[in-house]
Amino acid sequence: MSDARILRTFPNPAPKRDYVIEHTHHEFTSVCPVTGHPDFGTIAVRYVAGRTCVELKSLKLYFHAFRNQGIYFEAVTNKICDDLGSLLRPRRLTVTSDWKGRGGITSVVTAEWKPRGGSRA
Amino acid sequence: MSDARILRTFPNPAPKRDYVIEHTHHEFTSVCPVTGHPDFGTIAVRYVAGRTCVELKSLKLYFHAFRNQGIYFEAVTNKICDDLGSLLRPRRLTVTSDWKGRGGITSVVTAEWKPRGGSRA
Amino acid sequence: MSDARILRTFPNPAPKRDYVIEHTHHEFTSVCPVTGHPDFGTIAVRYVAGRTCVELKSLKLYFHAFRNQGIYFEAVTNKICDDLGSLLRPRRLTVTSDWKGRGGITSVVTAEWKPRGGSRA
Amino acid sequence: MSDARILRTFPNPAPKRDYVIEHTHHEFTSVCPVTGHPDFGTIAVRYVAGRTCVELKSLKLYFHAFRNQGIYFEAVTNKICDDLGSLLRPRRLTVTSDWKGRGGITSVVTAEWKPRGGSRA
Amino acid sequence: MSDARILRTFPNPAPKRDYVIEHTHHEFTSVCPVTGHPDFGTIAVRYVAGRTCVELKSLKLYFHAFRNQGIYFEAVTNKICDDLGSLLRPRRLTVTSDWKGRGGITSVVTAEWKPRGGSRA
Amino acid sequence: MSDARILRTFPNPAPKRDYVIEHTHHEFTSVCPVTGHPDFGTIAVRYVAGRTCVELKSLKLYFHAFRNQGIYFEAVTNKICDDLGSLLRPRRLTVTSDWKGRGGITSVVTAEWKPRGGSRA
Amino acid sequence: MSDARILRTFPNPAPKRDYVIEHTHHEFTSVCPVTGHPDFGTIAVRYVAGRTCVELKSLKLYFHAFRNQGIYFEAVTNKICDDLGSLLRPRRLTVTSDWKGRGGITSVVTAEWKPRGGSRA
Amino acid sequence: MSDARILRTFPNPAPKRDYVIEHTHHEFTSVCPVTGHPDFGTIAVRYVAGRTCVELKSLKLYFHAFRNQGIYFEAVTNKICDDLGSLLRPRRLTVTSDWKGRGGITSVVTAEWKPRGGSRA
Amino acid sequence: MSDARILRTFPNPAPKRDYVIEHTHHEFTSVCPVTGHPDFGTIAVRYVAGRTCVELKSLKLYFHAFRNQGIYFEAVTNKICDDLGSLLRPRRLTVTSDWKGRGGITSVVTAEWKPRGGSRA
Amino acid sequence: MSDARILRTFPNPAPKRDYVIEHTHHEFTSVCPVTGHPDFGTIAVRYVAGRTCVELKSLKLYFHAFRNQGIYFEAVTNKICDDLGSLLRPRRLTVTSDWKGRGGITSVVTAEWKPRGGSRA
Repeated sequence: MSDARILRTFPNPAPKRDYVIEHTHHEFTSVCPVTGHPDFGTIAVRYVAGRTCVELKSLKLYFHAFRNQGIYFEAVTNKICDDLGSLLRPRRLTVTSDWKGRGGITSVVTAEWKPRGGSRA
Repeated sequence: MSDARILRTFPNPAPKRDYVIEHTHHEFTSVCPVTGHPDFGTIAVRYVAGRTCVELKSLKLYFHAFRNQGIYFEAVTNKICDDLGSLLRPRRLTVTSDWKGRGGITSVVTAEWKPRGGSRA
Repeated sequence: MSDARILRTFPNPAPKRDYVIEHTHHEFTSVCPVTGHPDFGTIAVRYVAGRTCVELKSLKLYFHAFRNQGIYFEAVTNKICDDLGSLLRPRRLTVTSDWKGRGGITSVVTAEWKPRGGSRA
Repeated sequence: MSDARILRTFPNPAPKRDYVIEHTHHEFTSVCPVTGHPDFGTIAVRYVAGRTCVELKSLKLYFHAFRNQGIYFEAVTNKICDDLGSLLRPRRLTVTSDWKGRGGITSVVTAEWKPRGGSRA
Repeated sequence: MSDARILRTFPNPAPKRDYVIEHTHHEFTSVCPVTGHPDFGTIAVRYVAGRTCVELKSLKLYFHAFRNQGIYFEAVTNKICDDLGSLLRPRRLTVTSDWKGRGGITSVVTAEWKPRGGSRA
Repeated sequence: MSDARILRTFPNPAPKRDYVIEHTHHEFTSVCPVTGHPDFGTIAVRYVAGRTCVELKSLKLYFHAFRNQGIYFEAVTNKICDDLGSLLRPRRLTVTSDWKGRGGITSVVTAEWKPRGGSRA
Repeated sequence: MSDARILRTFPNPAPKRDYVIEHTHHEFTSVCPVTGHPDFGTIAVRYVAGRTCVELKSLKLYFHAFRNQGIYFEAVTNKICDDLGSLLRPRRLTVTSDWKGRGGITSVVTAEWKPRGGSRA
Repeated sequence: MSDARILRTFPNPAPKRDYVIEHTHHEFTSVCPVTGHPDFGTIAVRYVAGRTCVELKSLKLYFHAFRNQGIYFEAVTNKICDDLGSLLRPRRLTVTSDWKGRGGITSVVTAEWKPRGGSRA
Repeated sequence: MSDARILRTFPNPAPKRDYVIEHTHHEFTSVCPVTGHPDFGTIAVRYVAGRTCVELKSLKLYFHAFRNQGIYFEAVTNKICDDLGSLLRPRRLTVTSDWKGRGGITSVVTAEWKPRGGSRA
Repeated sequence: MSDARILRTFPNPAPKRDYVIEHTHHEFTSVCPVTGHPDFGTIAVRYVAGRTCVELKSLKLYFHAFRNQGIYFEAVTNKICDDLGSLLRPRRLTVTSDWKGRGGITSVVTAEWKPRGGSRA
């Protein structure tokens, strides 16, 4: 079962600079909550760090933990966005999931995290 | 015969967030209304959900129902745009059809749905 | 010899919506007016229809009629742009020709049609 | 109209060595004898020269001369094979035509020339 | 419903030469006999003609007639092989079907026609 | 846990013809028996059927059952080869696994099934 | 030695329309002024013509004349930009050179010409 | 050990023109500071020169010096950005590192240099 | 420094079957013994195991140990071939190195191991 | 002017093993002896060394020396084959030149060197 507590952080080495970090996991798999069939996709996380960065190995283990979880495309994407947003409090964060899908239909879901009371356009 | 009543919806799981959902059907086929020859294309639906999302399996069946219908490229694209716009009342919706075409000519038609009385540019 | 009178139109099925129609002819050929050697290219027409759309088969025949005509890249592009602009009076129209060229040089020419007295930027 | 007399030869510069020469014309076009529509394809000539080689510019002009000729895929391929075989008396000769085709069907025709009463290794 | 009587032939223009003809239909579609869902694939026919060749337009219509027929991958491939073998009595004939498949599995079926009592080299 | 009893067969529809059937599963995943990390690969099964063919849906479920099994690349390949060989008694059978691997190394394992005391052509 | 006097022009056939002309030379070669080793690259010229267009064959010969000239990537790009700007007095002009480079490093240099006293942003 | 003093410059040959120079090193390698395993990536430097340009061979040697240095993706990117920014005082500078990564995750880090007290958006 | 003693083996799980195992390392790097510049390439090992298989992680570490070794393309390839041949005593073994090379030249070296006094099928 | 005396050799490091060495030069250029226009191509040398191997840098310089030489495709290929054959006395040698060509025609010439009175396996 996925669990945001797996995630680890380290201090942003260049906190004064707005620079972009992208991590793309090419081997994401979870399970369709209706049919129980496996789903396969790619998860791209793109963010501008605040005080902390996400540690790469913990991010991999966090993704692995979805392996046998039944969850919809939309829910996965929003959950990862919420988990990383709460953890990192980044200046900017986008999560994109790209799914091989079924029956000739592929899907892409893109969500952006915004700090509460924040003011980004 | 295509019929928008095949389409099913489910509640938007993240209604407070403007996030983008794309479903691309790679195996769309209908029939040329003039010659009766089959047409083949790809239909991409891209939208920001309002209160509801379109259920993926019903979307597939909705697309399948065009299989033996005689209809022009422009008409298919606008019909899908109208059907999904009426059903979902999305914040934003674009439908793009990309056709293999005939005689060395390929075609792409892109339509955007706008709510009546709405105010998006 | 090319002749705009080959072109046929049909009423725009969604005249209230600004939607984009692209037709790309992958097998265009004409003749170099200087050397008499054949030229090969792709012609892409992209427009937002006004009252009428161009009929696809007539467009193909219109393109075929350039087959033995001696004409420069720049002239072909502007002529197609003028012919379709005059015929369709579209809200927007772009014509792009992409040529295999000669002697290691490829060329692309892109022209946009603007209605006289019009006001598009 | 195509005419094998356009073709020119030059003496094989390495007549004692069996080496392979391939010329591939990527811009071949002729006309369908039934519909009058243009056909587009690639013609690959692959041979081991005997006493003479085909001169490249004359080969290009020979190919250009099919531009407005109505002729079937099978007939073009066999004619080129016969014309070059008679001209060059090569040790080995293969002609392959690869056609973009029509209505979703592509075609490839491959013919090999054999000297009369000859014995190929 | 598919019907081999749609197929037309014409006399082989080079009956003394063993040359190879390939026709590949990129837009084949039939229906799964169990689920009723559409299947999409490519059918490649490769043969050395005997006395007759298959006429290309009739081949296209023959393929189109499978559009709403419920039939397995293996059965389609063997039926096309049998229909063309009986019609053309070719010196050699291979039929390959390549299917997009379902659930992450793609399939390819390849059958070769052999004349009864015949002897292939 | 993987189990060959999931597999189902149906009678070979063309038992007199030696024709080739390939099924390629693009979404195979199992687990490294040492590290517990997921492995991802493609499994291609290529066979000439004897009396029976493998049913496609049961093949998919058979592959899915490896999802949480710890097993080496070499062992998976040989097990699938043995399971399908015992079940189908095919005239010919090859199983190829192609793995994304780890640490910059990709791997491919190819095994061929042979009937005991049999004689393959 | 390169020489801008090789370049020829012809009157812009559509001087009232702002349309874009691109010529891309895929076989540019010059010599490294330090090591004497050959450099290979692609030169793309993109402009909106004023009163005149550059004649294509003279452009090719102009490019060929750099063949044995020792010159840096940056200098070539700026020289071509200056030569064409002075000659054509275009409304807009961009020159991009894209180099295969050496030792695992590729380079791209992009320069834009601006008329003196001009006012384009 | 990497050392910015390896870098050499030469005077900007076109100091009055804002033109863009990109150097992309396709064979960058350093070492993971935690595991000691090698990392492989591409480093792209894109800048608008001020008074000086970076000399290409010294840039290559500067990159080579990271070969056995243990350093994180984020740190490499920011260090190169700082080193080149301090050296060149460019009008604009962006450094992008694109990493093959580990365990199915690829990474991209993009940093932009800004002069102190500067005013670029 | 490279050292064959890093390599580990495990018993061949299917010793009665002649099956093929390929491991391809995409991130091999060593150093040119003349210039000291780094070389980058891909090493593919393809073998039919005898009694033992090479353990994958030890193979990776064995490859890493060449990182700072000055060695020619031909020598690396033959050394890996000799080291693995001596270790595994395989039924068949081929090693291929594919190098990015320098100055516009890429290289491939392929060596096959043969047991002394042995007899390869 | 090209000159085989530029070529250098070194002793074959594994003279008892028949292994294959390929060097492919991707940036070959010479001049058409008729028109004076530059030709661009790729030269692939593939050989099994006898007592000596060709030194890579000298091979590069040997190729560079054709830069301004007027020579036909067939002649270049046979000359390189003869020069390397005489120098290396290899067990096997093939030279392939692959040309971008002119006027829509690409060419490939492949020659194999055979020792006089020798016997190739």
